[in-house]
Amino acid sequence: MRFPRVAVIGVGLIGGSFALALKAARLAGEVAGAGRGAANLKLALEHGVIDAIAPDAAAAAAGADLVLVAAPVAQFASVFAAIAPALKPGALVTDGGSTKRDVIAAARAALGGKSAQFVPAHPIAGAERSGAAASSADLFRGRRVVLTPLPENRDADVQAVEEAWGACGARVSRMDADEHDAVLAAVSHLPHLLAYALVHEIAGRGNSAQLFGFAAGGFRDFTRIASSHPEMWRDICVANRDRLLEELDRYVEKLRALRPVVAAGDGAALEKLFAEARAARGRWLAGDYE
Amino acid sequence: MRFPRVAVIGVGLIGGSFALALKAARLAGEVAGAGRGAANLKLALEHGVIDAIAPDAAAAAAGADLVLVAAPVAQFASVFAAIAPALKPGALVTDGGSTKRDVIAAARAALGGKSAQFVPAHPIAGAERSGAAASSADLFRGRRVVLTPLPENRDADVQAVEEAWGACGARVSRMDADEHDAVLAAVSHLPHLLAYALVHEIAGRGNSAQLFGFAAGGFRDFTRIASSHPEMWRDICVANRDRLLEELDRYVEKLRALRPVVAAGDGAALEKLFAEARAARGRWLAGDYE
Repeated sequence: MRFPRVAVIGVGLIGGSFALALKAARLAGEVAGAGRGAANLKLALEHGVIDAIAPDAAAAAAGADLVLVAAPVAQFASVFAAIAPALKPGALVTDGGSTKRDVIAAARAALGGKSAQFVPAHPIAGAERSGAAASSADLFRGRRVVLTPLPENRDADVQAVEEAWGACGARVSRMDADEHDAVLAAVSHLPHLLAYALVHEIAGRGNSAQLFGFAAGGFRDFTRIASSHPEMWRDICVANRDRLLEELDRYVEKLRALRPVVAAGDGAALEKLFAEARAARGRWLAGDYE
Repeated sequence: MRFPRVAVIGVGLIGGSFALALKAARLAGEVAGAGRGAANLKLALEHGVIDAIAPDAAAAAAGADLVLVAAPVAQFASVFAAIAPALKPGALVTDGGSTKRDVIAAARAALGGKSAQFVPAHPIAGAERSGAAASSADLFRGRRVVLTPLPENRDADVQAVEEAWGACGARVSRMDADEHDAVLAAVSHLPHLLAYALVHEIAGRGNSAQLFGFAAGGFRDFTRIASSHPEMWRDICVANRDRLLEELDRYVEKLRALRPVVAAGDGAALEKLFAEARAARGRWLAGDYE
């Protein structure tokens, strides 16, 4: 057994699925879970997602061979502070945070000399569902997990964490943390903000019932991510706000440039833009950028 | 048989599905199709979507009891002009256009005294697929069709068109054309423009391959409608540009108001907005606005 004792701090969709996937791959022995929601932890225990409920993060981490921190990113500083004294030598820590610069800063500040044991990871496998009950051993299958290793990490430790995520079925790659946060701001964080903003704008109108009443499949898919976990996305937007603002400004500029094209009824320019966008999306769906 | 002879001008997803659904409901006898794409018409004939290929719109409409115009909306003026002389007394015309003020103006200009035979309709049942091959007798099942009747329509004719769409399984309602165009600009036309703009913006960057490479399920759903038919959406955006611009301005203003909230890292305000949007979307999904 590669990791006889695993601790999951935050047994939500990501944490629960990681536990199930590691067990299915026979890499994990006993999994202890810790988190804020007692009812959620109880559910996770009943569903066999975890084997034991730890009273707190430190207790879960004590004696663990592998710790996954999978809470909303604003909680990472306190989680790292809690587990730091409990981490045994040789234990590995990884995480499920959607932003990496802030998570790394929190780890460095709280883990001190033990920061070399932390190999940051971002499993790109969200869903609008959340909580332990939504967990699945297959959540990461075919999905990307980005590692943003620290200079102080031992190569063997990075490789061990890479293997753990790989055993969950993920396609694991490595990237610089700065680059990660910039890329994800563009293709994930901004779209979430845009979808939330559109739904909120419509919900705030006097005729919102009529507007929603005639919204159909296109609206449903465009706004699916506006059903995402508010606290999780609050933390992501705050943590990555510099990059998110760059993307927001760029997008508003794009819309501003599009306005006179629409106003002029310039069909040729609109059709060109629409066709180019469709073609690019088609190449993406076809796997050209895998 | 309610409509012994039906003409479909534009045998795409909407036109083909209307033909199949009317036949399944045993309301249509022989269906003649006309359109620009010879290969597409041949496919429609081979798949039994239509029973005959007419050489042009006028030939299809001659002798028809019911005519559906289901071309991109910029073509409606020429289609109406072509079918006007061929329309027999008592024949009904309806359409599948996503905008209604421009379609009505085109009908009034080209049909003259026969405009009373035209009952405008918008089946809210798009898909990113297009063409006769994508047709299905079930496309309209449970979907909304909005009629925007003309003052000169006979009540019995509006009712007959309502019954035809109803027989396709649609939930048919009536609305003023102005109101229709305003409502659809908000919940359909703007989201399409936003999705196309985001994909185009990303596709235009030097690192677009990397950005697409780390885009996941949220991005896929958010941008699904950016795979929609460019010509169809060009015509919609041009035809409804005044209402679309109002919506675009309103949305850009929303984003502008959101910017300082993100910049300040105001987590409480972000969480409130996200939670309110999620709750509104949840009510919509639960059917509160049906």
